[in-house]
Amino acid sequence: MRAATYNGRRDIRVEQVPDPKIESGDDVIVRITTSGICASEVALYYQQGVEFVHLGTVLGHEYVGVVEEVGRDVRRIRKGDRVLGSPFPGCGVCPECRDKIPSRCRANGRAALGATLSGSHAEAMRVPHADQTLERVPPDLSDDQVICVGDQFSATLYHASLAGDVAGKPVAVLGLGLLGLVGVLALRTLGADPVIAVDLIPERLARAEEMGAAVIDARLERVGRRMRELTGGRGVLFCLDTSGDEEALSLGIGGIRPGGTLVLAGTYVEDRIPIPTTAYWKNLRVFPGTAQTREWNRVALHWISTGRIDLAPFVTDTLSLDDAPGGFLRLDRSPLFGFTEDYNPVAESCLKVVLKP
Amino acid sequence: MRAATYNGRRDIRVEQVPDPKIESGDDVIVRITTSGICASEVALYYQQGVEFVHLGTVLGHEYVGVVEEVGRDVRRIRKGDRVLGSPFPGCGVCPECRDKIPSRCRANGRAALGATLSGSHAEAMRVPHADQTLERVPPDLSDDQVICVGDQFSATLYHASLAGDVAGKPVAVLGLGLLGLVGVLALRTLGADPVIAVDLIPERLARAEEMGAAVIDARLERVGRRMRELTGGRGVLFCLDTSGDEEALSLGIGGIRPGGTLVLAGTYVEDRIPIPTTAYWKNLRVFPGTAQTREWNRVALHWISTGRIDLAPFVTDTLSLDDAPGGFLRLDRSPLFGFTEDYNPVAESCLKVVLKP
Repeated sequence: MRAATYNGRRDIRVEQVPDPKIESGDDVIVRITTSGICASEVALYYQQGVEFVHLGTVLGHEYVGVVEEVGRDVRRIRKGDRVLGSPFPGCGVCPECRDKIPSRCRANGRAALGATLSGSHAEAMRVPHADQTLERVPPDLSDDQVICVGDQFSATLYHASLAGDVAGKPVAVLGLGLLGLVGVLALRTLGADPVIAVDLIPERLARAEEMGAAVIDARLERVGRRMRELTGGRGVLFCLDTSGDEEALSLGIGGIRPGGTLVLAGTYVEDRIPIPTTAYWKNLRVFPGTAQTREWNRVALHWISTGRIDLAPFVTDTLSLDDAPGGFLRLDRSPLFGFTEDYNPVAESCLKVVLKP
Repeated sequence: MRAATYNGRRDIRVEQVPDPKIESGDDVIVRITTSGICASEVALYYQQGVEFVHLGTVLGHEYVGVVEEVGRDVRRIRKGDRVLGSPFPGCGVCPECRDKIPSRCRANGRAALGATLSGSHAEAMRVPHADQTLERVPPDLSDDQVICVGDQFSATLYHASLAGDVAGKPVAVLGLGLLGLVGVLALRTLGADPVIAVDLIPERLARAEEMGAAVIDARLERVGRRMRELTGGRGVLFCLDTSGDEEALSLGIGGIRPGGTLVLAGTYVEDRIPIPTTAYWKNLRVFPGTAQTREWNRVALHWISTGRIDLAPFVTDTLSLDDAPGGFLRLDRSPLFGFTEDYNPVAESCLKVVLKP
């Protein structure tokens, strides 16, 4: 079959790879209909030598597809089901899975689709522990309506849960890339109020404002002070940092209340995460952590089914699988992700790029 | 009156300073009977120019004494009461105090005794918001029995509370300076099991073992692996890092379970706290935070009164206030605190140095 493989820094190739096969009784094979390119893959694309991804690995961990073949121990998922799932296939019964951290599943040796296992930028993909990993997609929903569920949208629901109940409480999102914008929607849907959105790009701020956020343009306003002003002087209870940028975090941390929660939602690949010492003086609860979305996918699907949220508008670019290198290049050129060597100050329209086999 | 003042790097002087006076209706004046030297003061002693301590400030924030004068608005505390208290005098009613973070009290402009306010290495000290800040000490308890309550012992109770309930659960303490040793006792008293204690110094490890800890000698064993072995492969739920040492933390973090809690109990003065990225991959809950002990002093005093714990043995050195520079020098020379330029591999007997006016 055809698949998009990682071959080192800025080197994505579409090539023939072996078809996936059932390897264990709880595997299924999913014929991919839509695969999303994630910002963490764009990071990888620049970080040649990230240890856990071998050259030649099929990338992709955001997926929608149809189950084509089912292992003998699979109970919940059936052939023909339309599904989406989590990047982390966990067994559901080891201590880590029971603690709802399937990314550390023992049975799988901490497997991740599109990283240690073959991923979804392909015609088909093997999904281990399918009963645990996959959710059925209601037939009336399009792929575009649900492709941002399994990683971005549910990630914010998980991250917000770390702060406890955010309903009616002030929160902030630093950085309005796709993760940040989807985060604004998730936090609004959870009832947080106000949801303060911080970025430098007017188009992104306008988009967050349309979703009901109070916005702060970091080029024009003092971020921490403005965050405090917007919250009656107290600061936000919960701050989601999607910027992955030390300077942005240093500005934003001034707007979090003492005892508040700071989630570092970016993917960290360096040896150390430098946390501003303000976190110490403010007794912040700091969560640097991979998104554990599985518990939340059902919630997100319910909200989409009932018309409460619409994720389809975040899909801005639909390409064929053969154009995967172009998809990465598109994100590569986006100032959103901060990885471009020639920083382009003009906001680009590209948010979620999806590949169709 | 006489007091010990901070005058820059390794420069402590005992000199005449003005007597403290009631400045506000909720102040009291405490005649100090015992004042403990804290490791954070030894850090300060090496970090000339720490912004919030002016040259000439009277140091000291661990204190026992007798109330000598009472402001007109004080209700709970009376003249003649024997008291101990927290380093942070908070008003009790501002949002931060109600969130139990008095170190950020608005009414006080984030005051700290012995830092922004005159401290306890003196004949007497003014304590603002006395009703909130002070606890009465039962008359049958000696100063030595309670001097480690208001900062070290209650600190661990606060820090452990951040992990939720630790009773019956595996925990670890990295570093067996005074804070670590007192932490072992606090965690044992909370019913954590096992309490794993990690250090390099045999005498410290022996002391922790006497208190019922399972010990790991970091010179002889692989810390993370041994922590996992001692917890049935799972790792500890809660890890208290009192080492303040990046390498120690990197070793220890391997023994914390995914989703576990890491508290950084040291005082951080640099701009950034470098957290090992393992914390990200393990979804740890990381709390870098100043100790908020006030809520816990009552619990500690109850345990001491009822004979459940004994903190007196941690007081190893009793000096007169006039010997304050020698007290700092004594801790200065202790390898416990890691600040000595000529690292002394021989464990010293000095744990808590107290000053008596």
